[in-house]
Amino acid sequence: MKTVAHPARRCPPIHLLPQGETGTRRFQNEEQITLPLVPSSQPEPLIKLRSHWLLGTLFAIALALMATAPALAATDDGKVTDFVLDNGMEVVVIPDHRAPIVTQMVWYKTGSADESPGKSGIAHLFERLMFKATTNLAAGELGRAVSAIGGSMNAFTSYDYTAFHETVAPWALEPMMSFEADRMFNLMLTDDDIKTERDVILEERRSRIDNNPQAVLDEEVDATLWQNQPYRIPVIGWMQEVEKLNWADAVAFYATYYRPNNAVLVVAGDVEPETVKALAEKTYGKVPRGPDLPPRVRPVEPEQNTRRTVTLSDARVSVPSFSTQWVVPSYHTAEPGEAEALDLLAEILGGGNRSRLYQQLVVKEGIATEAGAYFRGTMLDATRFTIYGSPRGDAKPADLEAAADAEVARIARDGVSSDELDKAKDRYVRSVSFARDEQPYMAYLYGSTLATGRNVKDVEEWPDRIRKVTADQVKAAAARYLVPDHSTTGYLFPKTEN
Amino acid sequence: MKTVAHPARRCPPIHLLPQGETGTRRFQNEEQITLPLVPSSQPEPLIKLRSHWLLGTLFAIALALMATAPALAATDDGKVTDFVLDNGMEVVVIPDHRAPIVTQMVWYKTGSADESPGKSGIAHLFERLMFKATTNLAAGELGRAVSAIGGSMNAFTSYDYTAFHETVAPWALEPMMSFEADRMFNLMLTDDDIKTERDVILEERRSRIDNNPQAVLDEEVDATLWQNQPYRIPVIGWMQEVEKLNWADAVAFYATYYRPNNAVLVVAGDVEPETVKALAEKTYGKVPRGPDLPPRVRPVEPEQNTRRTVTLSDARVSVPSFSTQWVVPSYHTAEPGEAEALDLLAEILGGGNRSRLYQQLVVKEGIATEAGAYFRGTMLDATRFTIYGSPRGDAKPADLEAAADAEVARIARDGVSSDELDKAKDRYVRSVSFARDEQPYMAYLYGSTLATGRNVKDVEEWPDRIRKVTADQVKAAAARYLVPDHSTTGYLFPKTEN
Repeated sequence: MKTVAHPARRCPPIHLLPQGETGTRRFQNEEQITLPLVPSSQPEPLIKLRSHWLLGTLFAIALALMATAPALAATDDGKVTDFVLDNGMEVVVIPDHRAPIVTQMVWYKTGSADESPGKSGIAHLFERLMFKATTNLAAGELGRAVSAIGGSMNAFTSYDYTAFHETVAPWALEPMMSFEADRMFNLMLTDDDIKTERDVILEERRSRIDNNPQAVLDEEVDATLWQNQPYRIPVIGWMQEVEKLNWADAVAFYATYYRPNNAVLVVAGDVEPETVKALAEKTYGKVPRGPDLPPRVRPVEPEQNTRRTVTLSDARVSVPSFSTQWVVPSYHTAEPGEAEALDLLAEILGGGNRSRLYQQLVVKEGIATEAGAYFRGTMLDATRFTIYGSPRGDAKPADLEAAADAEVARIARDGVSSDELDKAKDRYVRSVSFARDEQPYMAYLYGSTLATGRNVKDVEEWPDRIRKVTADQVKAAAARYLVPDHSTTGYLFPKTEN
Repeated sequence: MKTVAHPARRCPPIHLLPQGETGTRRFQNEEQITLPLVPSSQPEPLIKLRSHWLLGTLFAIALALMATAPALAATDDGKVTDFVLDNGMEVVVIPDHRAPIVTQMVWYKTGSADESPGKSGIAHLFERLMFKATTNLAAGELGRAVSAIGGSMNAFTSYDYTAFHETVAPWALEPMMSFEADRMFNLMLTDDDIKTERDVILEERRSRIDNNPQAVLDEEVDATLWQNQPYRIPVIGWMQEVEKLNWADAVAFYATYYRPNNAVLVVAGDVEPETVKALAEKTYGKVPRGPDLPPRVRPVEPEQNTRRTVTLSDARVSVPSFSTQWVVPSYHTAEPGEAEALDLLAEILGGGNRSRLYQQLVVKEGIATEAGAYFRGTMLDATRFTIYGSPRGDAKPADLEAAADAEVARIARDGVSSDELDKAKDRYVRSVSFARDEQPYMAYLYGSTLATGRNVKDVEEWPDRIRKVTADQVKAAAARYLVPDHSTTGYLFPKTEN
């Protein structure tokens, strides 16, 4: 899938795990979940799509609607509407009439950091299981149908959320909403489904993580940086725990988290809020509310008092690199203005070619091929601030690291100039504004914000809040959080002779 | 309390947290637990000790019994008997008639590694709460009564277990068993009890951990060595989690874990198995069995692929030191013979003044004031193997560490001689035999073994199993587990100018 990452940062991928859907219809057996979507007195399932209907009828509707669709007024573009369905599902609509296309994202407020001890990987496994058969649709049919009408769909899992999305022509929004509502409640899972997808993930782990020294290092750096908070656990799960995930784990996870009162629907594109509201009530509105979930209170990270390092030396590594990270507050946990200051600190220190790290290490000293910084602010709990670099030619990694540390120390000691801060604000707000111009990014921005404890107003006020950050706040953030003796550094080295 | 540590090792203390009991009787209120020990149709509580009875009557019995107690035959000394009460409580009796004294230990198979996420410290807090009032006895009365008859008592909490023990004259065993049976079921806790003990622990944390650089370092080394297994969490708990422990947490912990079917009684001393059995049935036997506990399956540690370091520089440190640890199997998780080989490896490498590390670093090179190794085998899950040292005079910590690593590498490469191995076996088995001569140590040995998934036979066969270890097994253990690139080293340094 296309990774919807923060546009202004050279970030490592934020664990948007790609999702392919395959498989054939499986026959029911006694191990299947059969959750009736409607009370048993009502014999018909909510969503009456059948596969034969799907592949034929969607095309017929498509042809009819495409020919007759009126050109809608674009006056409400960008005016965001949000409301809550009776069953607790939040809905955000972002009209954008510049093109006849619409993106639906369904966000579940559950990710790897919500998993039970010993069950790492269940959130990601479940993302894959959501492409299995429902009481209405065989496994794989949804994907084929979306492809057939020229749409796209995918899903991803992260620490704090799991999301499913489709981009289609506006006439196809209703069936897409029916599909998502259907699998929110009507999923039928067999023991074979779990085994198949678990094996796929184990193979994915072997190839993407275990065969990749950088990924192996990243996992152990994460678990060293986070000693109590669950972000220490990889989204894909620890091998030995994924191997043991089973049907009962999956069913329990579905029953607990895949409920409308734990979900956010974001629709961005060529639609009107009233239309979305009517369709949402007609589809998602029929899914019964689940039991209230307890507050998302997770183990908190204790204060860090040490400097930690994690070193991986591997024959497959040709160019060494380092990254140093600190525990810092996220937008959700920060005092007002603090996360915004960290965002600008990252921009000034390492956000692209004009940043201090790039200018000093790559351009002036010529000791690095790359150097930068990023802050991952959209998280439910405390998050990380990272600087990184890779040496050029014969430069020693230690020299590079020392030079980077010196840049950090300089900001903590001397602060930033108002001119530098203003330019950073301009660059940063502009880059995000450009990104906002993309419909899927808008949906991503609202969805990830709402799934990590904040609201629509936070998204809308964000540029103003960035504008208000002072140079003192940036300096204070660096001095308070980027303390060398309380950092965690990962080193990737070519394997040398022992 | 007296620390019952492994006698053959210079170990760091194994988190035997001392327990002082204080407090006055608290009046019942609606928040108290009032668990009737007997069905409500039976109006009398099991244990009829009342404080007025206690202080007077114990003395009277004492005088009567001490005058008339027959000198029992010593023929059954060391012959261990074990049985299970109808309610699931395991009992081990170790007769030892050399002196008119008896040690009772009650082991609960729950420790800090069994705590729920975010509830660190509840096991240790609960140990303290066990000295509060019961339906039969005011808080503090038990301690005063034991002192009054010249006995001693205490308790400790570790990762895998929590234990309570008394050493008294044989005639006082029955009331001691009544006491322990009483607080296994009749504890009454008020909200004030929790607040008081929580505050005591917070103060203990501040003084013992946060004011002690070595302890602060140890905590972060533990959490770096263990990235998934719960041994990464300190037994005393993380400050920010202990602060939030409450009455409901305590009650839930008591209800879940403080049950006869989750406990082991060990009685060592001047008693007969039949007597202990009769008394146990009369006291503990009346405590109803709790619901079956799920198997103690905890999150497993993923494979370590990196070399990790944790450094604390602090102005209060005068002499630097280092310790390197590796994840290794425990007696409970190891293949046959493997844990025994690790025990001997620790003995040869760093078990006292004749060990390789001591001889090489302290005696020959003169670069260390101390150097050694230990293996902590009696654990439920995978455990640690540690080497440590502290430089002498101007010796550099890095040189010391390199010399220690070289000794480890030498064993992994060249193995150990059969003479060296035989001497190590002699020293090791003898040192444990000496320790076995102490009654409390015997009780500790059986209790800790049974509380970590093994049995009486394992304790009895242990010297033979040590005798059977081959030099190849010792070499293989070093080569397999003590890999420099997969280690975790903690450094304590004096704070230098920045």
